[in-house]
Amino acid sequence: MSRVGLSVPPGFTVDTETCADFHANGGALPEGAWEEMVAGLAHVEAALGKTLGDAENPLLVSVRSGAAVSMPGMMDTVLNLGLNDSVVEGLARRAGGRFAFDSYRRFLDMYGNVVMGIDHGKFEHALETLKRDVGVDSDEGLSEQNLRDLVEIYKGVYASENVSFPQDPLEQLRLATYAVFDSWNSDRAKKYMAINKITGLRGTAVNIQAMVFGNMGETSGTGVLFTRNPSTGENKLYGEYLVNAQGEDVVAGIRTPSDISTMKDALPAAYEQLVKNTELLELHFKDMQDIEFTVEDGQLFMLQCRSGKRTGAGAVKMAVDFVKEGLVTKEEAVQMVEPTHVDQLLHPQFKDEGAYKADVIGAGLPASPGAAVGQIVFSTEDAEAAKAEGRKVILVRVETSPEDVGGMDAAEGILTARGGMTSHAAVVARGWGKTCVSGCGELSIDEHARTFTLGGVTLHENDWLSLNGTTGEIIRGRADLMPPTVSEDLGTFMSWVDEFRDMKVLTNADTPEDAAAARANGAEGIGLVRTEHMFFGSGERIRTVRRMIMAKDTPSREAALDALLPFQRDDFKGIFHAMSGLPVTIRLLDPPLHEFLPDGELDDVVQLLSEDTGETEEDIVERIEKLVEVNPMLGFRGCRLAITYPEIARMQVRAILEAACEAKAEGASPIPDIMVPLVGTVAELEDQVALIRQTADVVFGERGDSVEYRVGTMIEIPRAALLSNEIAKHAEFFSFGTNDLTQMTFGYSRDDVGKFLPTYLEKGVLKHDPFQVIDVDGVGQLVQMSVERGRSTRPDLKVGICGEHGGEPISVEFFAKSGLDYVSCSPFRVPIARLAAAQAAIRAKKV
Amino acid sequence: MSRVGLSVPPGFTVDTETCADFHANGGALPEGAWEEMVAGLAHVEAALGKTLGDAENPLLVSVRSGAAVSMPGMMDTVLNLGLNDSVVEGLARRAGGRFAFDSYRRFLDMYGNVVMGIDHGKFEHALETLKRDVGVDSDEGLSEQNLRDLVEIYKGVYASENVSFPQDPLEQLRLATYAVFDSWNSDRAKKYMAINKITGLRGTAVNIQAMVFGNMGETSGTGVLFTRNPSTGENKLYGEYLVNAQGEDVVAGIRTPSDISTMKDALPAAYEQLVKNTELLELHFKDMQDIEFTVEDGQLFMLQCRSGKRTGAGAVKMAVDFVKEGLVTKEEAVQMVEPTHVDQLLHPQFKDEGAYKADVIGAGLPASPGAAVGQIVFSTEDAEAAKAEGRKVILVRVETSPEDVGGMDAAEGILTARGGMTSHAAVVARGWGKTCVSGCGELSIDEHARTFTLGGVTLHENDWLSLNGTTGEIIRGRADLMPPTVSEDLGTFMSWVDEFRDMKVLTNADTPEDAAAARANGAEGIGLVRTEHMFFGSGERIRTVRRMIMAKDTPSREAALDALLPFQRDDFKGIFHAMSGLPVTIRLLDPPLHEFLPDGELDDVVQLLSEDTGETEEDIVERIEKLVEVNPMLGFRGCRLAITYPEIARMQVRAILEAACEAKAEGASPIPDIMVPLVGTVAELEDQVALIRQTADVVFGERGDSVEYRVGTMIEIPRAALLSNEIAKHAEFFSFGTNDLTQMTFGYSRDDVGKFLPTYLEKGVLKHDPFQVIDVDGVGQLVQMSVERGRSTRPDLKVGICGEHGGEPISVEFFAKSGLDYVSCSPFRVPIARLAAAQAAIRAKKV
Ligand SMILES: [Mg+2]
Ligand SMILES: [Mg+2]
Repeated sequence: MSRVGLSVPPGFTVDTETCADFHANGGALPEGAWEEMVAGLAHVEAALGKTLGDAENPLLVSVRSGAAVSMPGMMDTVLNLGLNDSVVEGLARRAGGRFAFDSYRRFLDMYGNVVMGIDHGKFEHALETLKRDVGVDSDEGLSEQNLRDLVEIYKGVYASENVSFPQDPLEQLRLATYAVFDSWNSDRAKKYMAINKITGLRGTAVNIQAMVFGNMGETSGTGVLFTRNPSTGENKLYGEYLVNAQGEDVVAGIRTPSDISTMKDALPAAYEQLVKNTELLELHFKDMQDIEFTVEDGQLFMLQCRSGKRTGAGAVKMAVDFVKEGLVTKEEAVQMVEPTHVDQLLHPQFKDEGAYKADVIGAGLPASPGAAVGQIVFSTEDAEAAKAEGRKVILVRVETSPEDVGGMDAAEGILTARGGMTSHAAVVARGWGKTCVSGCGELSIDEHARTFTLGGVTLHENDWLSLNGTTGEIIRGRADLMPPTVSEDLGTFMSWVDEFRDMKVLTNADTPEDAAAARANGAEGIGLVRTEHMFFGSGERIRTVRRMIMAKDTPSREAALDALLPFQRDDFKGIFHAMSGLPVTIRLLDPPLHEFLPDGELDDVVQLLSEDTGETEEDIVERIEKLVEVNPMLGFRGCRLAITYPEIARMQVRAILEAACEAKAEGASPIPDIMVPLVGTVAELEDQVALIRQTADVVFGERGDSVEYRVGTMIEIPRAALLSNEIAKHAEFFSFGTNDLTQMTFGYSRDDVGKFLPTYLEKGVLKHDPFQVIDVDGVGQLVQMSVERGRSTRPDLKVGICGEHGGEPISVEFFAKSGLDYVSCSPFRVPIARLAAAQAAIRAKKV
Repeated sequence: MSRVGLSVPPGFTVDTETCADFHANGGALPEGAWEEMVAGLAHVEAALGKTLGDAENPLLVSVRSGAAVSMPGMMDTVLNLGLNDSVVEGLARRAGGRFAFDSYRRFLDMYGNVVMGIDHGKFEHALETLKRDVGVDSDEGLSEQNLRDLVEIYKGVYASENVSFPQDPLEQLRLATYAVFDSWNSDRAKKYMAINKITGLRGTAVNIQAMVFGNMGETSGTGVLFTRNPSTGENKLYGEYLVNAQGEDVVAGIRTPSDISTMKDALPAAYEQLVKNTELLELHFKDMQDIEFTVEDGQLFMLQCRSGKRTGAGAVKMAVDFVKEGLVTKEEAVQMVEPTHVDQLLHPQFKDEGAYKADVIGAGLPASPGAAVGQIVFSTEDAEAAKAEGRKVILVRVETSPEDVGGMDAAEGILTARGGMTSHAAVVARGWGKTCVSGCGELSIDEHARTFTLGGVTLHENDWLSLNGTTGEIIRGRADLMPPTVSEDLGTFMSWVDEFRDMKVLTNADTPEDAAAARANGAEGIGLVRTEHMFFGSGERIRTVRRMIMAKDTPSREAALDALLPFQRDDFKGIFHAMSGLPVTIRLLDPPLHEFLPDGELDDVVQLLSEDTGETEEDIVERIEKLVEVNPMLGFRGCRLAITYPEIARMQVRAILEAACEAKAEGASPIPDIMVPLVGTVAELEDQVALIRQTADVVFGERGDSVEYRVGTMIEIPRAALLSNEIAKHAEFFSFGTNDLTQMTFGYSRDDVGKFLPTYLEKGVLKHDPFQVIDVDGVGQLVQMSVERGRSTRPDLKVGICGEHGGEPISVEFFAKSGLDYVSCSPFRVPIARLAAAQAAIRAKKV
């Protein structure tokens, strides 16, 4: 800060050459070094009008080591150097006896430990003994007299160690300097440098700086501030200060600080200086600053400044204002806002996260960000009923299944006991921008009693509950909410974002509504329509799907498929309208068929299916047994289904292309991209491409009309990534399914990884959950290999990604670097991905 | 054969140049060509003393196309050319009227179809009509008169097509030759050549060869033979012949042929010639030949010869004899025996697979080769009880689990309804060399009634059943067995095999007994000890394991582990003794813990576990629920367990190294290689290597002794293969777990792949089951990448493979090419792998 021209406490430095010479001389200062230090000290004394060791007007200093690389094992800091038995009395007269002796006993402890090598535990033990004798719990409970006694006790510790505390402040300074030099040469420091391969450094510098005091009377004070309002971004100082106080008084909260604006009257000169300083700092650092300052006897000293933390709303407004003020360029502004900031803006937030802390009864995984408040329900039916009555609810489940989507839709938020960040609940909730806390293992649900217990608290149906999907906190009662802040600034900001971005952002959307929402958020098409989500759209649909699954032969399967066709066609048509003129990437049926069976006890399921399908219970049981899989994730799904039962894929392709023809006839511009899931061999893709093209020819022939369409594939099986040169011969586009690709590359089941992932993250075996942040070294290697090999065969191959990673900023940057054409993510993450892509492009330009 | 100097029917060839000229001339023979053909014909006539068209002594010929590449769409063959209304009467006089007119009507059909372009269906229809009119079912039922009538009917077909049948044999020959030329130019042939990228051919040749007849009286005959006994390898002609007969008479089985040895007396001159010919053929082709011959009027004609099929025993004996006879080199002999031949020798076989065909009631997968006969039992208990009574049984189960190993051990063979080639039953059975047929989906077991139904047959407990593990056939009753043939020749042969092999063959073995058996089969160490198999060794062991799994905290888990330690140590010690001086690669615990829970209904399991462990049923249920996994193959297993519960790995390492120290003290030379399973990240391996080395230091410190050991890792997760350069920094050896690697690279679950694999193989989406034959393009790519990257970091890295593929010949060749140091396979596959490795080395030298 002093370089910026601000008033910081004066000081001086002993350089590293002196340290090197000190050691070369066998532990003696080189000639003239001490004299230079004394001269530096005199300079400081002159600047402040105080003198080291002068009891009437004492200068106190801090001594810090200043190596080019900081390392453990080196002396850190000694504060309040210059105090002795006489100076402390002078300080007591000026700043109060309690403060003076508290400072003195702290100095004795710190100096004894870091300079004289006395075990800090000895001072700590003495302090604890005194507190017990006096009968107080905290250090604050000790009186001035107690602290005066403690100083004597600490001197006794020095005596018992056979070292003497130097009363001469110059001697204190000399020995502290030696201690810094010695610590450079300590075994621990050497070892640290060896391990960390730090070489070429000649020694450490020593920084000596004057201490300043805000508790020197009514013309002194101390405060903290942000140069702008961190919550709203408003360009106005935001902070507080206390007259006649030290920094710790603000923190301790014993006295109530005043708003920073009132300092204008209380300490007008210092305030004027402060305002000037904040302006200089913003100008210099080109950002809002978080500042600590002290006023000593009317003179302002800036103690610390750093870029200030801010909310999403604040970040966006500041970024826009900075550009308007000419402080930063648009490019710089785009880099100032974090993707999570934008995320915040799009979800409701709690007014004050501090206010509910006492009511937090537990925590789960922060599966889908935002804040939700509602009454507890335990079933989809109850959630839907409550919604119909206009009530807000939180759906609490052990875990969710596709059958729960109605309830999830009706609820404000979802809480589950099982399932990770990529569980069904989490994925669906994020897709809808709905708050979700998942995998709260401690949550114990009693569905019969309609209660749950968590953190020793039992809550009943219809009790109020709040969820923080950003932190994972589970809060009993109704915490105060504020709505998402959609501002004009955000629009301005996002328009700049798009100026720098060169990777497209598409969305994962399964309905016309999602598609429209995503388009409003800036999506440039759909990267993934999961056709199976449509199968749960209504009771009739799922019943038809189950008839298809339970079919004993091809004709009865085809009959069920014929009944499904109009549903899918209508859904696709709606999506083509919503995304008119933009690509819509539709994935053919992917999940194993048993996912469409009802949940519950086998007997009930069989009865229900028997009613739904008209088959005998015996037949149903036999069919279910055939569908059961040991490892469904590696089972009979994706194109494996479509190759075995081509009639399923044929129906879907027909529905897509009939819908496209109809949408076209109605004036829309449909751009269907048909995507084959779970391809692992070239022959699989060849089979499916032939089926799709043949079906297309039939449909177009029937209609006497046609639409352009492309056929591509998911790359989500490691083998497909390895064989991408061959695969690309038959695929017009690739879309990385990084969820499955991560599962298979690591051999982790998303559903089961919770058993060891926490241990892995804790032990540092993994840096991130690879289902959230792309694993660059392994999965990323396959992605890059696939892109390279695919484009070696087909240079114009369109490549994107539609896994969960498509909305995660670190991953988005990786995909941009890997040359992907687009990322696709849930509608609510589109703005985040746009920003992350823009920041990635800017960083790439700089390298 | 004629080049070898054997008596084959004389003939001549019209060359491809003539064909090219024919087309260039617009469909006319070039000048002089016809004259050359007539000259060629004269040569044939002179050689046989017969004349084309001479009714008294007619020459008949076959006309075949002779392109450098044979292709569908080209004319194939016309037989018996030269017959006409007068010649047929002459032939009737010499060879019988029925034969003569049957030959004539066949010629009319064939000629009409391939030369004149008449639909073959017309002749077929006429024949069927005649048979219906006459009232016979088969062609054989037709009399000479019927055939004379048929000839007239066939001429009517020609007439109705407005083409005339040329009575002039020379004209027949000319037109047949034109037809061959034309077929070269046909659309179908052109299309075929285009598709198959056949270029550069100028045309087709035409081969014209005399027909010979074995039914010209008592000095004629026909026969088939092998030059040596294909079952035993004995060097003696093996075959049969019929006097006065055509080849089809032998096939039709109406007359009983005589043993070839009796031909010596019946047709002495021809026999002597035949013996000479067989000797010449073996000398030329350097292999046992399968021969067809005909004797016409005392003159021998060799019609066809090819290398003869043989049994394992035959193959080995012949190979050894050929070397002794100086016919082939050892190197050639090693290439003459197929790995499956050696496999056969090591398992019991059925005496005669033809004999039981009527009793085959179904088929499953040929999961473990050999033949087994026994009485049906449905449980492990019953199998063990029967074995104790000295009875032979077949264990029939829906599927097997580790709890069934006792019953599998007691049974002669295992039959399961579920599970593929790499199911539990299959893997265990192959490891023991025990017959197993798995995955017979049609098998319906009624455990209560103690019956099963298959192929419409219901069999009861204690009924006899036979299994062919080589073909998958399931046979009711007792089929006759013959024991495995272990001969001196095999020992001789295998010693030659090892001379050419440069890749080592290790074994997968979990007990001292298996280790000893494998060593006897030539194993050069153990590539995989599955430590968990020891956990099932006795009731006390599995109960202790379950106490460990059910432990609520680390101390109670450690107590259970302490109790397990002596069991494991003793087993390891036995193995070190059995493999003294050879490396023993021990894999730390791999499967998910729930694999050690009992099978059955939840309630029973809970009760059993509660009794075993002393925990409450409630606690047991809770713990089981936590162990349940959605995709166990991708779940909490391998080093993931050992990192979460380090005490498990510590116990195992201690048991290994204590056992090694004890074995060493007892005079053995233990070489333990400790292997970490399921590594996917570098940090996992680092963690485990540190744990192993620390535990080793403790054990060696306690003992005051030490042994050399290496620490390595499985490469079975795609990510580990990709990061092999990093992984190799911490691993002294790699062992490819190609089972898991295949699962994850393809995204196939071994347990579930049966749902679509049959369709995939049928449709040609996959060429092989990738769990049996290594997938060179995908999984193989990862293997090669891993070897290369691993050795780039650690040039002396030892690399092997211990998956199921280690005993499969195609895969073994791939591993040899990829530079692996060894393959490891089940004890009974060691000789197969040795042979496959030797053949691979020989082939590699040749390239
Ligand atoms: Mg997927
Ligand atoms: Mg494995």
